[in-house]
Amino acid sequence: MQIGMVGLGRMGANMVRRLLKQGHDCVVFDVNADNVDALVKEGATDASSPADLIAKLAAPRAVWLMLPAAITPKIARDFASKLNKGDAIIDGGNSFYREAIDLSGEFSPLGIDYIDVGTSGGVWGLERGYSLMIGGPQAAVKRLDPIFASLAPGAGQHIEEDAAVGTAPRGYLHCGPAGAGHFVKMVHNGIEYGVMAAYAEGLNILKAANAGNGEREADAETAPLSHPEYYRFDINLPAVAEVWRHGSVIGSWLLDLTAEALKQDPHLKNYDGRVSDSGEGRWTLQTAVETGVPAPVLASALFGRFSSRGEALFAEKVLSAMRHAFGGHLEKNR
Amino acid sequence: MQIGMVGLGRMGANMVRRLLKQGHDCVVFDVNADNVDALVKEGATDASSPADLIAKLAAPRAVWLMLPAAITPKIARDFASKLNKGDAIIDGGNSFYREAIDLSGEFSPLGIDYIDVGTSGGVWGLERGYSLMIGGPQAAVKRLDPIFASLAPGAGQHIEEDAAVGTAPRGYLHCGPAGAGHFVKMVHNGIEYGVMAAYAEGLNILKAANAGNGEREADAETAPLSHPEYYRFDINLPAVAEVWRHGSVIGSWLLDLTAEALKQDPHLKNYDGRVSDSGEGRWTLQTAVETGVPAPVLASALFGRFSSRGEALFAEKVLSAMRHAFGGHLEKNR
Amino acid sequence: MQIGMVGLGRMGANMVRRLLKQGHDCVVFDVNADNVDALVKEGATDASSPADLIAKLAAPRAVWLMLPAAITPKIARDFASKLNKGDAIIDGGNSFYREAIDLSGEFSPLGIDYIDVGTSGGVWGLERGYSLMIGGPQAAVKRLDPIFASLAPGAGQHIEEDAAVGTAPRGYLHCGPAGAGHFVKMVHNGIEYGVMAAYAEGLNILKAANAGNGEREADAETAPLSHPEYYRFDINLPAVAEVWRHGSVIGSWLLDLTAEALKQDPHLKNYDGRVSDSGEGRWTLQTAVETGVPAPVLASALFGRFSSRGEALFAEKVLSAMRHAFGGHLEKNR
Amino acid sequence: MQIGMVGLGRMGANMVRRLLKQGHDCVVFDVNADNVDALVKEGATDASSPADLIAKLAAPRAVWLMLPAAITPKIARDFASKLNKGDAIIDGGNSFYREAIDLSGEFSPLGIDYIDVGTSGGVWGLERGYSLMIGGPQAAVKRLDPIFASLAPGAGQHIEEDAAVGTAPRGYLHCGPAGAGHFVKMVHNGIEYGVMAAYAEGLNILKAANAGNGEREADAETAPLSHPEYYRFDINLPAVAEVWRHGSVIGSWLLDLTAEALKQDPHLKNYDGRVSDSGEGRWTLQTAVETGVPAPVLASALFGRFSSRGEALFAEKVLSAMRHAFGGHLEKNR
Repeated sequence: MQIGMVGLGRMGANMVRRLLKQGHDCVVFDVNADNVDALVKEGATDASSPADLIAKLAAPRAVWLMLPAAITPKIARDFASKLNKGDAIIDGGNSFYREAIDLSGEFSPLGIDYIDVGTSGGVWGLERGYSLMIGGPQAAVKRLDPIFASLAPGAGQHIEEDAAVGTAPRGYLHCGPAGAGHFVKMVHNGIEYGVMAAYAEGLNILKAANAGNGEREADAETAPLSHPEYYRFDINLPAVAEVWRHGSVIGSWLLDLTAEALKQDPHLKNYDGRVSDSGEGRWTLQTAVETGVPAPVLASALFGRFSSRGEALFAEKVLSAMRHAFGGHLEKNR
Repeated sequence: MQIGMVGLGRMGANMVRRLLKQGHDCVVFDVNADNVDALVKEGATDASSPADLIAKLAAPRAVWLMLPAAITPKIARDFASKLNKGDAIIDGGNSFYREAIDLSGEFSPLGIDYIDVGTSGGVWGLERGYSLMIGGPQAAVKRLDPIFASLAPGAGQHIEEDAAVGTAPRGYLHCGPAGAGHFVKMVHNGIEYGVMAAYAEGLNILKAANAGNGEREADAETAPLSHPEYYRFDINLPAVAEVWRHGSVIGSWLLDLTAEALKQDPHLKNYDGRVSDSGEGRWTLQTAVETGVPAPVLASALFGRFSSRGEALFAEKVLSAMRHAFGGHLEKNR
Repeated sequence: MQIGMVGLGRMGANMVRRLLKQGHDCVVFDVNADNVDALVKEGATDASSPADLIAKLAAPRAVWLMLPAAITPKIARDFASKLNKGDAIIDGGNSFYREAIDLSGEFSPLGIDYIDVGTSGGVWGLERGYSLMIGGPQAAVKRLDPIFASLAPGAGQHIEEDAAVGTAPRGYLHCGPAGAGHFVKMVHNGIEYGVMAAYAEGLNILKAANAGNGEREADAETAPLSHPEYYRFDINLPAVAEVWRHGSVIGSWLLDLTAEALKQDPHLKNYDGRVSDSGEGRWTLQTAVETGVPAPVLASALFGRFSSRGEALFAEKVLSAMRHAFGGHLEKNR
Repeated sequence: MQIGMVGLGRMGANMVRRLLKQGHDCVVFDVNADNVDALVKEGATDASSPADLIAKLAAPRAVWLMLPAAITPKIARDFASKLNKGDAIIDGGNSFYREAIDLSGEFSPLGIDYIDVGTSGGVWGLERGYSLMIGGPQAAVKRLDPIFASLAPGAGQHIEEDAAVGTAPRGYLHCGPAGAGHFVKMVHNGIEYGVMAAYAEGLNILKAANAGNGEREADAETAPLSHPEYYRFDINLPAVAEVWRHGSVIGSWLLDLTAEALKQDPHLKNYDGRVSDSGEGRWTLQTAVETGVPAPVLASALFGRFSSRGEALFAEKVLSAMRHAFGGHLEKNR
């Protein structure tokens, strides 16, 4: 099947590669011509502009956008103004699901289908396949099935059918009307933050298992470690992460990656610990709040990322100022 | 190798079965004779009392306790008083790691090795193998290697050696001296609570994705749903859990189980939502606090379990009383 | 000064009373005529409809809305369509601050000032005065100063001037342009939720100080209380709340109210513990998330309210289903 | 009444001053002789050693320890070995309440009363009085009533009696047997942490109200600020803290201090934001966990302090390592 791919970053380029390998015809465009050239060498058809990409696609066209969330709506509208009735635009990026509802409403009168596809899999998707969460009109989603099936992990595998869950065992799912794909992907990422934080906190606790070996100050402002004799372990973190991968309740793909990362760099010296967040975690939390659903774990995980970037600083200063005001406490030197 | 197993509940019985299958000689005891009989039919040797169990083991003996944490120390002391120099007691239950340090210190002068083994794998361990986190003296752990290797998932498989992580790829690991095994298992369970809560919160948010279909009251005490048009999804939760299993970042064994559970019972009608906690989650949090390590996700997960059992009730009443006192707010009827 | 008050609920009616006492001329309207009549007896001028209220006010008019957030924008637009250039609409309710920015933008071309006033004080405001956080154009806020000054706690008191904080010591403050008042009030309520929860959690912990007097089950799924001898206190909660009011670091008005409530009803039998939230707590959290500010305490407080109303239930069922799936654990009976 | 005071730091010295002013006879000792000299000039009797202090007190003696928690038990035992039947030792420091239960059990056979007094009030206690939470045997507490009454805020004031709450309105309370005083003080401080954090988080959100004035990056890893037009407030924090003091629901002594601190230093430039914790917050949380009481707000507040001191660093590095592993994400430069 033919598809146009716009945005050839880490994700977009690998998705093209996976589609090419399975015999699809990919017309590709990126503002960086080098990215286009690289894929042309691997069998893609180059497009020098959005208009050129459209010209090189046969109707009904399918244009897949794999772009930063901040610019996706603008580019989507630009394409919509150039496409025809029956064509489809797919947003596979990390957009807020409400954009899909809004844009779908805008493009629907033009006869252009807008399809939102939450895409998980990261840099491993090329090989493992991408988990796809899809929103949009039934007919358009059905028409694009060969693309979804090829991108998803189940491509080329025999997989048992199960009516209750449709194509889910193949690694892609039509989740509902416009926005449903990004909604499900948003919550997926919210969960991801929580799961990641659970491992990270646990490993941090294991790392502190030797706290009793050091000295802790004994003054009016510091709690003594009441039983240092119980904190004298030097835990081999790479080995622990590895053993948990085999038969334990917390085995997971994230743990696999963590174990590998710890083997390469047991003290994680290559990292400073400033953790980005890309939007979905925030939206998940805002959605939970709006709908009145408690999400303390997801919230804690998100706030931990904010704090890692120093965003708690003023609050911390307020605490120090209060402590000074009521107790005369001075901050300790670092 | 010969081993005595004391405590033939869900975990202990299956561990015996796994050991029997791999040719070990198991002498078994339980206060419930039916549990003993069942295993005798499968090839175990019965013991009618602790003394009988000891008598049927050849020195140096290995007695594995698989008992509730609350009674383990008492039973361990009882066995220690009957065993000889060179024998070993293994605690494979969910004991607080400090018990192992204390009991090890008590039994060491008698020449009895005390070995703490954190055991993960649940009802699936019989088939998948158990992830074992082991603490205790090097020589004793080494001597029991055939038992650990058989219980762990790697039994009978060809597994690449890796000096940096020792036996971890086989699914068992000597984590350090007395207590280290239960310490690592404790943190494992703390992580488990956090990971579970992340999925649970996310699925709850997905379930509320249809909030805009209902009516929300509009009064001075209730926030209106500002954009009901964005909350009109009916998400197929079993299908979503299934699709996430394939290629997504949050794939895990817990997700596998969750997807299966949702397929069987999409609305989880079989559950009331009262969630137990068995100790390790509490100890993990207390350890984090004692050593000054932030663990907000693990804490939120644990507190969610407490709340599920109604333990927040008085605090909630205090909030209602305050709201009434300053704002004249009455509680709404259920 | 003359003012029209629309919405004579708990808050609106008492604000009229406070203004009447200080010699202001209040024209009042409510959909419930009884509410109007009650205030007419205390000196207010009745209005039988919005149009009548407008007709009874001299230009430049000031119409104060004290209504549920969900209907405020509609009523505000209705008044704006009937008022003239130079008139002002004040929203003193619990509206989302963005409404004020939007409505201000709509009414500004008509020459109508829209002023958002966050109002704190609850049922005690009549006597103590209301803390007012004000947003809107400088000139209009200045024109209404006599009203603000009378509603605020500083009315009739000698208060030292302090240029750095303006009228704040009098209990009212022009916080900035349109929306600033409700923004500051929103955060105020977010803080309020956090402060309330801190007291509530602490009192709940004190209540459990007798946990060692009871029996705790000892089975594989329940952590034993390791030192019951340390949990044998029967704390007199009303007395503790009272003693904290005198000289302790946590003295506050909320504590004053809590102590009084506990004195009246030491076990808070009059409450079920279903705690409402009225919007600001949610908006505060969403704002924190949007601007990347960690707010774990405010989030926990809000989620505690959601949970008190049973909104965690499905998540809790997911946890029980997982526990059953991996460990065969059955839920315990209530 | 005569009392011996041991430990003349910030708290101990001011408590002596308050007692001297009310006519009590204070014999004082500190390892730092300068601290002793200063109080001798104000009317105290000096002691050159514990033995000297004991010698200068008439039986039945009362020795009040105001020392860091880490050394209190040792010093208490030292005094107990030198005192006589009928004497009393009072621990007014921030000790873990279990120490009081243990020490009380040790000293009781000697006929020495051990009394634990949680003391709140900070550097302001000299003037405002100290809130005292007292545990220990009824008779000994009664005997020391003149001391407690003088230290507490109610000294010299007419205060209405209320049988239900005893001496609480005077600012001191016999909370129960040994340990009850420190238990109640422990929870008091847990609440304090939560209340402080609520204000700190709220003020941090207010500070970020101008987020829409800056630029936010738009790339695949950063969520765009969806509505910068709603984040263009420059909030005068000192003025807001001040206005909240007057008539708002969140008025408190901590807010009074915060407003003053912000007036002196609106950007809190004098603080780095490293926030200490002195033990009670930790013990409160551990107690909540042990007794199964949800305390998410208190936990979040405590963990925020840990994080302010960099204790989340390794967990943050784990997150960055995971993000790199699955998504190829590099950390952003600071």
